[in-house]
Amino acid sequence: MSDRRPVSTESVELCTPYLVLDLDAVRERYAEFGRALPGAELFYAVKANPAPRLVAFLVGLGARFDVASRPELELCLAAGARPADISYGSTVKKERDIAFAHRSGVRRFAVDSAAELAKIARCAPGAEVFVRVTCTGAGSCFPLDRKFGCSTAAAASLLLDADAAGLCAAGVSFHVGSQQLDPGAWRAGIADAAEVFRRVRARGLRPDLLDLGGGFPAHYDTQVRPLSDYGDAIHEAVAAEFGDDRPELMIEPGRGLVADAGTLHSEVVLVSDRDGDAGPRWVYLDVGRFGGLAETEGELVRYPIRTAHDDGPRSPVVLAGPTCDSADVLYRRHPYLLPDDLCAGDVVRLLHTGAYTASYSSVGFNGFAPLRCVCTGDPAAGGPGSSVRAANVAV
Amino acid sequence: MSDRRPVSTESVELCTPYLVLDLDAVRERYAEFGRALPGAELFYAVKANPAPRLVAFLVGLGARFDVASRPELELCLAAGARPADISYGSTVKKERDIAFAHRSGVRRFAVDSAAELAKIARCAPGAEVFVRVTCTGAGSCFPLDRKFGCSTAAAASLLLDADAAGLCAAGVSFHVGSQQLDPGAWRAGIADAAEVFRRVRARGLRPDLLDLGGGFPAHYDTQVRPLSDYGDAIHEAVAAEFGDDRPELMIEPGRGLVADAGTLHSEVVLVSDRDGDAGPRWVYLDVGRFGGLAETEGELVRYPIRTAHDDGPRSPVVLAGPTCDSADVLYRRHPYLLPDDLCAGDVVRLLHTGAYTASYSSVGFNGFAPLRCVCTGDPAAGGPGSSVRAANVAV
Repeated sequence: MSDRRPVSTESVELCTPYLVLDLDAVRERYAEFGRALPGAELFYAVKANPAPRLVAFLVGLGARFDVASRPELELCLAAGARPADISYGSTVKKERDIAFAHRSGVRRFAVDSAAELAKIARCAPGAEVFVRVTCTGAGSCFPLDRKFGCSTAAAASLLLDADAAGLCAAGVSFHVGSQQLDPGAWRAGIADAAEVFRRVRARGLRPDLLDLGGGFPAHYDTQVRPLSDYGDAIHEAVAAEFGDDRPELMIEPGRGLVADAGTLHSEVVLVSDRDGDAGPRWVYLDVGRFGGLAETEGELVRYPIRTAHDDGPRSPVVLAGPTCDSADVLYRRHPYLLPDDLCAGDVVRLLHTGAYTASYSSVGFNGFAPLRCVCTGDPAAGGPGSSVRAANVAV
Repeated sequence: MSDRRPVSTESVELCTPYLVLDLDAVRERYAEFGRALPGAELFYAVKANPAPRLVAFLVGLGARFDVASRPELELCLAAGARPADISYGSTVKKERDIAFAHRSGVRRFAVDSAAELAKIARCAPGAEVFVRVTCTGAGSCFPLDRKFGCSTAAAASLLLDADAAGLCAAGVSFHVGSQQLDPGAWRAGIADAAEVFRRVRARGLRPDLLDLGGGFPAHYDTQVRPLSDYGDAIHEAVAAEFGDDRPELMIEPGRGLVADAGTLHSEVVLVSDRDGDAGPRWVYLDVGRFGGLAETEGELVRYPIRTAHDDGPRSPVVLAGPTCDSADVLYRRHPYLLPDDLCAGDVVRLLHTGAYTASYSSVGFNGFAPLRCVCTGDPAAGGPGSSVRAANVAV
């Protein structure tokens, strides 16, 4: 139990916790998006998992990219993305970062306020601007309402202002909220976008971009509908609202593209038998809310967990992370059933952890190192990690 | 507004966001702890702020250290701390990390379960063990109940088992919860500890350590009582429970020692005027919940904020961070009053941010770099950062 549990690779030896991202699974999911939403351009939301090898792999597949910051933009450029294939989707940007993006050749910028539009006009003359409208986020695990977006009337006004400022008034975006379980949730946003289009077309503008955002779900412990259901619902709503005058469609999946491809390997540090039989066992892992599992907050995201003892009897446990922080408890209100044989030193695997994990890690809270991400699959790419074998991980 | 806002130092140029930690203020607060709790050994809880220069500075002041992990232990050793002055206070440790600490000369380890005690017995023969008892955490902003600690009966049993396993049954610890506003909160823990002492003394043990934990508060936007009130309440309770047979006292302040010494400098990225006059302005900073302000979750910790326009008229704002995450909102339910003149490009200062900020930063969520910490004061130490001047920061 006290020996290390390394993972052999050609050039890297990793100990838990670490995240393995299967690029073959990403490729399959990318193709599934293409089949479900033909004609929609896919802009990968880099924030979901900014692993450089993943981004380079997606460049190879022909993906485009939605970035939230200058460092994400630089990452995409370094990975080989063309500037024209990058959308700066944050509505909150520093002027110097807008100017940098413009100099780099990025053409497309999001806004939802007059103050942000004025920055774009100053720092990115001639750029394409799309305006984000609010969306309630109903049906989503992570509603986005109020922090971003404006009303349809304000959006129309901003597009007119953009045009008057010499910018290209490109279109409208909205976001139905992350991990959206209802394929019908896009309908309201598409209707709102159509209303904005009508308002500004009446004033002579010709917007041509409808950004449907992200929100496509991962498979955690709930049943989610197939992507084709989402595609069907979206195409139906676009046809109903826009008829033959259909704009260019773009989607920004992050979680929906990469979450299912990730498996987080963690070691059990302690199975606590405090105070005898009162209450469930506490199982402490070497990863927790500050080491990559931030989305367990509120227990909304419930990662399936696998161990080497899954055939034996199970009982409820409280699952916690390794830090001294009282908030570092993963699942308590709805305890997991884990094997009675589970003990310190065992490795457990948390599935569908490819999104919003490694990039959420703290730099070193309580001294624990950030979660590392290793990409497998894509043997053509070569390089470190391409032959990761979890040789010593007996699960 | 689009120019950079660097901070000049002898060898470092920093742009916002960054944290400045004033070591002179730390020195003063350290002395205040000495006056308020004479005779209690101070073990700094490194997790609150693991800046290497801070730790080295505290070594110079004669502090001891409470560590939560092997990397924190290595940090203290590298900063010059003696192994005998380090307490491994986490009750959740890997066996290989216990063995490493033992080999390094660390003598003192915390436990709250039989499984953890067995690890210590195997990997750190002869070590001092202290047992953590539960504490409700009432009166604290961050109660720690249930994740750590055991009953007094279990604690007595663990100390007896420790003795039987050839370990030194050193004593008892408890923690009243972080940011504890009630100086009387230590009373119950001290009474519980005394009960454990009585139980094991009746069986022939001679424990001599009472670890009073942390919980000493920082000055956020609430009035907190002076440290001397905490010292008086603690000494009174120890005298009442232990009489002339007073054990060695130790305290583990983290937040209470360093929070007030920190000032976080951040730039306003956007003041949003969405939808006209409906509701408060939204002010977006270049730091948020994922860049160091994680403790704004639930709006319990309210950092005082200073701007260059504080003499002018103010109105309510919602304060948010720069990421695309909907959870990255700092204060919404209880809006701040900020100047009407505040605009993008202005620098704001968040006070009392020296604890649980930089070490909580994500590695790069949404691409934003982690918060940097620069130490000022202590000119004797020299080196980078010793002459930081916020030359261009006009606040």
